[in-house]
Amino acid sequence: HSRWARDSRVRWAFEEVGQPYDVRLVSFAAMKQPAHLALNPFGQIPTYEEGGLALFETGSILLHIAEHHAGLLPKDAGGRARAITWMFAAVSTVEPPIIELQNAKLLEGDKPWTKERMPGVQDRIRVRLGQLSAHLGEADWLDGAFSVGDLMMVHVLQRLKPSGLLNEYPSLVAYVARAEARPAFQRAFAAQLAVFNGQKPGG
Amino acid sequence: HSRWARDSRVRWAFEEVGQPYDVRLVSFAAMKQPAHLALNPFGQIPTYEEGGLALFETGSILLHIAEHHAGLLPKDAGGRARAITWMFAAVSTVEPPIIELQNAKLLEGDKPWTKERMPGVQDRIRVRLGQLSAHLGEADWLDGAFSVGDLMMVHVLQRLKPSGLLNEYPSLVAYVARAEARPAFQRAFAAQLAVFNGQKPGG
Repeated sequence: HSRWARDSRVRWAFEEVGQPYDVRLVSFAAMKQPAHLALNPFGQIPTYEEGGLALFETGSILLHIAEHHAGLLPKDAGGRARAITWMFAAVSTVEPPIIELQNAKLLEGDKPWTKERMPGVQDRIRVRLGQLSAHLGEADWLDGAFSVGDLMMVHVLQRLKPSGLLNEYPSLVAYVARAEARPAFQRAFAAQLAVFNGQKPGG
Repeated sequence: HSRWARDSRVRWAFEEVGQPYDVRLVSFAAMKQPAHLALNPFGQIPTYEEGGLALFETGSILLHIAEHHAGLLPKDAGGRARAITWMFAAVSTVEPPIIELQNAKLLEGDKPWTKERMPGVQDRIRVRLGQLSAHLGEADWLDGAFSVGDLMMVHVLQRLKPSGLLNEYPSLVAYVARAEARPAFQRAFAAQLAVFNGQKPGG
């Protein structure tokens, strides 16, 4: 039994491996307080607690869950290493230009340069989406069966939905839809929705 | 014995764990060719080959080396998970604003908005450096002994040197200097320098 801040991707991972979990909601104000900073020096969510162990960073938490419960990492060493490679590709290569787009909208949305600057920012994302789409080809998942690498990548791509950019790559739209159709994702989504609707946050 | 594209951080990791390695240099042009894209769909370096296994992404390669050779991951499960957490913190939280700064300089350096925009970009980096510095405090390394988490974080911070921003955080300057004083880093640096000077690329 584990406790963690509200976060759909960690919830999804627990559903994939069939493990129970407890949720602790963290307000935006509390994220900047010493109690939370002791769990994550950068004041972000999610954080994860299990017995005396406290972790932060989505990638680290997902990998920890995947290493300790069957279902999210291939059993052979090569497949395992490649799944972890895709986790790092998601956060190190695909996500940075997406963060830049979100910064352009949220932090520089009122600046005089943002409208003219935006196409260049979007093109940097298109380069990565084109390469990812070329790799995926006709396959269902990035490397063989669904893994924690897909879970991380889908989470990153989901951040793009409001921009409409993902729609330029139908195979990536289908890839995200395939992930979201998984029963574990559906259970996680329903449980998170229940929290938003004011029901108890347990899972 | 392994083969990989020229890259100082992977070389450093092999020196830390005392393993021999072979180097294969990859030109910028070759990085976009099918043979390299088969190793890394995003056309970047480093890539890593070991027997039939091919990996990419610095984080994944470093973690693979750390998992298979003693010296870069704590032996206890908690310390190991926390070291991996710092790897993800380096690439997911500290590096994205640094990438944004490099994009501003390299890709938007000639744009009319860049001068006015730069202070905001730099401030996003300062937020992360301040949090990292606060966490480090008087400690030598991020969590106990030097680990692959420090290796990854130092590599990310090294990217900031040309900007001068790191100098605003003396404890982080000292942290990077401490890492660069390690014999393994010195050996890796000397070996890489030999390549630039036209000597054979082996290690």
